[in-house]
Amino acid sequence: MKIGFVGLGNMGAPMARNLLKAGHALQVFDVSAAAVQALAEAGAVPAASPKAAATAAECVITMLPAAAHVRSVLTGDDGVLAGVAQGVTIVDSSTIDPASVKAFAELAQRQRNAFVDAPVSGGTGGAVAGTLTFMVGGSTDAYEHVKPVLSAMGRNIVHCGDTGTGQVAKICNNLVLGVTMAGVAEGMALGEALGIDPKVLASIMNTSTGRCWSSDTYNPFPGVIDTAPSSRGYTGGFGTDLMLKDIGLATDAAKSVRQPVFVGALAQQLYQAMSTNGAGKLDFSAVIKLYRRDADEA
Amino acid sequence: MKIGFVGLGNMGAPMARNLLKAGHALQVFDVSAAAVQALAEAGAVPAASPKAAATAAECVITMLPAAAHVRSVLTGDDGVLAGVAQGVTIVDSSTIDPASVKAFAELAQRQRNAFVDAPVSGGTGGAVAGTLTFMVGGSTDAYEHVKPVLSAMGRNIVHCGDTGTGQVAKICNNLVLGVTMAGVAEGMALGEALGIDPKVLASIMNTSTGRCWSSDTYNPFPGVIDTAPSSRGYTGGFGTDLMLKDIGLATDAAKSVRQPVFVGALAQQLYQAMSTNGAGKLDFSAVIKLYRRDADEA
Amino acid sequence: MKIGFVGLGNMGAPMARNLLKAGHALQVFDVSAAAVQALAEAGAVPAASPKAAATAAECVITMLPAAAHVRSVLTGDDGVLAGVAQGVTIVDSSTIDPASVKAFAELAQRQRNAFVDAPVSGGTGGAVAGTLTFMVGGSTDAYEHVKPVLSAMGRNIVHCGDTGTGQVAKICNNLVLGVTMAGVAEGMALGEALGIDPKVLASIMNTSTGRCWSSDTYNPFPGVIDTAPSSRGYTGGFGTDLMLKDIGLATDAAKSVRQPVFVGALAQQLYQAMSTNGAGKLDFSAVIKLYRRDADEA
Amino acid sequence: MKIGFVGLGNMGAPMARNLLKAGHALQVFDVSAAAVQALAEAGAVPAASPKAAATAAECVITMLPAAAHVRSVLTGDDGVLAGVAQGVTIVDSSTIDPASVKAFAELAQRQRNAFVDAPVSGGTGGAVAGTLTFMVGGSTDAYEHVKPVLSAMGRNIVHCGDTGTGQVAKICNNLVLGVTMAGVAEGMALGEALGIDPKVLASIMNTSTGRCWSSDTYNPFPGVIDTAPSSRGYTGGFGTDLMLKDIGLATDAAKSVRQPVFVGALAQQLYQAMSTNGAGKLDFSAVIKLYRRDADEA
Repeated sequence: MKIGFVGLGNMGAPMARNLLKAGHALQVFDVSAAAVQALAEAGAVPAASPKAAATAAECVITMLPAAAHVRSVLTGDDGVLAGVAQGVTIVDSSTIDPASVKAFAELAQRQRNAFVDAPVSGGTGGAVAGTLTFMVGGSTDAYEHVKPVLSAMGRNIVHCGDTGTGQVAKICNNLVLGVTMAGVAEGMALGEALGIDPKVLASIMNTSTGRCWSSDTYNPFPGVIDTAPSSRGYTGGFGTDLMLKDIGLATDAAKSVRQPVFVGALAQQLYQAMSTNGAGKLDFSAVIKLYRRDADEA
Repeated sequence: MKIGFVGLGNMGAPMARNLLKAGHALQVFDVSAAAVQALAEAGAVPAASPKAAATAAECVITMLPAAAHVRSVLTGDDGVLAGVAQGVTIVDSSTIDPASVKAFAELAQRQRNAFVDAPVSGGTGGAVAGTLTFMVGGSTDAYEHVKPVLSAMGRNIVHCGDTGTGQVAKICNNLVLGVTMAGVAEGMALGEALGIDPKVLASIMNTSTGRCWSSDTYNPFPGVIDTAPSSRGYTGGFGTDLMLKDIGLATDAAKSVRQPVFVGALAQQLYQAMSTNGAGKLDFSAVIKLYRRDADEA
Repeated sequence: MKIGFVGLGNMGAPMARNLLKAGHALQVFDVSAAAVQALAEAGAVPAASPKAAATAAECVITMLPAAAHVRSVLTGDDGVLAGVAQGVTIVDSSTIDPASVKAFAELAQRQRNAFVDAPVSGGTGGAVAGTLTFMVGGSTDAYEHVKPVLSAMGRNIVHCGDTGTGQVAKICNNLVLGVTMAGVAEGMALGEALGIDPKVLASIMNTSTGRCWSSDTYNPFPGVIDTAPSSRGYTGGFGTDLMLKDIGLATDAAKSVRQPVFVGALAQQLYQAMSTNGAGKLDFSAVIKLYRRDADEA
Repeated sequence: MKIGFVGLGNMGAPMARNLLKAGHALQVFDVSAAAVQALAEAGAVPAASPKAAATAAECVITMLPAAAHVRSVLTGDDGVLAGVAQGVTIVDSSTIDPASVKAFAELAQRQRNAFVDAPVSGGTGGAVAGTLTFMVGGSTDAYEHVKPVLSAMGRNIVHCGDTGTGQVAKICNNLVLGVTMAGVAEGMALGEALGIDPKVLASIMNTSTGRCWSSDTYNPFPGVIDTAPSSRGYTGGFGTDLMLKDIGLATDAAKSVRQPVFVGALAQQLYQAMSTNGAGKLDFSAVIKLYRRDADEA
């Protein structure tokens, strides 16, 4: 399939490479000429603008940092909507707010194009390995149409419901993640302060009702899980600033529907405090440093 | 073994029955004569006081609502310490604060007796089935000594470390549990408000980073997990008032060591608000009612 | 002075009337023709658009619900910036985010016009009486220029600093207000539950370190302050949804500069919970209903 | 009047001196012999125990750190209740939990003595100057009886209601204080981060709805109020650990009556975080250091 791809950052570049490997023809654009050049060397056709990338494409994929970038890439004078044909499916894999998704979908529909939100989980590792999870919001037809394309980049392609529900799934999951990590950090730090061996505490938690991904896979206490960022100085995982972005999208969406999110809003402040103190680039599990008095300062 | 057993409530009675089934000789006491009578019919020797239950016993087990009861049962004029021989291990399976455990252990040691804290998880179902988890705090010797006895009542007998660490494990786990449940409640209610099917949302969460016992086993949204209390009107699970007791022990212990527990303290207030509003007897997952506007009032 | 005035709602209409009373010539616009007609009867010249209201004006004042309205009124095809001359001062008295203020100021400057943010406190009562407080952000020149105009509508015209600082003053004040009200509500409800006469408690608080406007002027407990909304069924004061808007601006601004606002974010959730439960139109001091078990439901 | 006085610390010693100055005869006891000696030099009769201090006294006053000390001083073998005559009024000016007050009052009543709780506000400065506020819980008779005595030590002697309500008034006030200070700290720090002059912001707040003792008298931002601890390095005021004690009494009392205190519990965690980080001896307004990124570390 001929695919336009816009956004070749840490996530987008390896995703685009996996599409090339699967035999798709790619027209790629990024604000970084070097990023475009690197993909061109891998077989993609470089495009001079989002518009050019979208021209004559059967499918357009965007992977961008925030809603403002998506808006600009889609609706700018040189944007995707200015170049795209009719009957095309536009897939946005960025993590953005559900309200923007609905606005973009409406613009696409006016052009007789489908718009699908398909944010991912799995991180840069999953992007490289092609094992991402895609949470897809859109009509069943649109979902079926893009599923083969997304399958070249991910392992689980989940249909979440109508337009916007892909983003809803992602931000609700990450709200829960932000809260459970803060809870595990408090529980582990409290246990340490009260004199229990952190490994013993984690082993009990992980076979009991406190069990969660934040404890059994990504435990914030150093040394408990060898493969977790906490065991390598909180580097190389899911950065605090990224968590802050996602949990901010969740509390904003909650505000838009007047839905209280007590512990979510508090967890957001904890990650904000980390970011303020210069720990924004550390893995978000470093939130435990707010609780451990003998830990080195973040 | 000849065992003194004090406290024959919802948990203690089935635990004592399992000891009888395993062939132990029991001397039992409870403030309820009916409870004592019921156990006597099952083969236990009724005792007129904690002291009488402890007399000539090789091991004494207490299973009581709170530290004040344990104190009174141990140190009263007719208490366990007034009747017990030397070289006996006293096992307290109540959930109480770690500081009280240490005080009781000291009193026992003065008498040349060992004291072990061994709070349980698994609820009344686990007590009846003999599948409880025991979190044991005490010396290795004491742990090895009581392990066979506890094995008649539970499946996992975990040595957590020195005296008090059994309670630390339990309250830290339940702190995390109280937080994760509140987080899942917020995430599920937010998803509902934003228009995603709750079953779809839960299925994504449960295979992603939001995965936790509160979501995959005990999901607070009605109908998501058939066997969860949420699917039967929030009855018959872990009562809100019990969660409130445990999370209160955790925040009190945190206060005693000046350890902040931000989200834990907030979750405590949420359960307190439920209790204030008359929902104290409902399963604690009913906390989701604080968030769902169309849910029937708690 | 010839003044263009856009936005004739509950606040804007009485403000415009006070300008007329002070002898200014007004060109007025509102999306409601009836609102324009009412002002025309009071002596203003009706305008067909923001552009028309701004044409030939020496000063333009906008008083609108949110930043999106200000943007549209200023930058639309029929907007203020399309009609205004050079050397004019545009005063926005809406409560909006400081970042939008800076963007609008830049647009105005490109036209060689000054832009001043001048949000108010004092409510509709103060708007009618002409006793508002204006918090003015802008250059000293611009402040001096508009001070006489604002003085026709308010009693205190405070220069807060550069562009945007008027909004900063307002949202920081209202953040503190939202927190103190929640705190007083908790303290008063706790006192009631513990058996002290609420009037006695308030009188102590108001002569002690708990003293605050939320306690001594606007106490949320019914009957403590006769003139407070709490003593008339929480009607006719500062609506919860308005507090929610202002505290939302504060937490959003905090997010934009990565500044934690722990208690502010929590207070926001409390007002959000009220709004969810249908109490959004009640005075914000009705937050105490979340705490009082025998109070009628909000 | 012949008065027994137990507890000669930072508060008790100057209070006792003021009683001496007013012409009362004092029998004094403290665990510190030096403290007793100092008072003896000022004219008091040294006593060897609380019992001795209470013997033949017409009124007994205790001023101690916590409920456990009061219990021991009252009920110990050498305690006040062992030495006191009948018809005496026992005044406890310590800040303790209302439930303990009721227990002590019952013990006193069995001896036909009255018990009055009379915690103070005003700090060591007020204790020296004799300008304390006494919040008195007890019968009207008991209040009238002790009022002249308390007037020698304080300026406002407020009758709060029945036994325990003095403590209720104090802890509810200090709950509100703890919350308002955290709120002001957030508002001031946010204003700073958004670029407004802190003095300007405070002056607006202090004439507007954010006005409170924590802002207009004790502003946490250095340099805003010359006489506030924030302007002298957060020394010499109301220590964080003392705030933590009082707000802990409030949240504990709330727990005992199942009353939610959302923002109060969160403020408690903030002060706990300060204490954890070694700032427990600083004035509690140093909580603003949690928010200001360029402030020197607490």
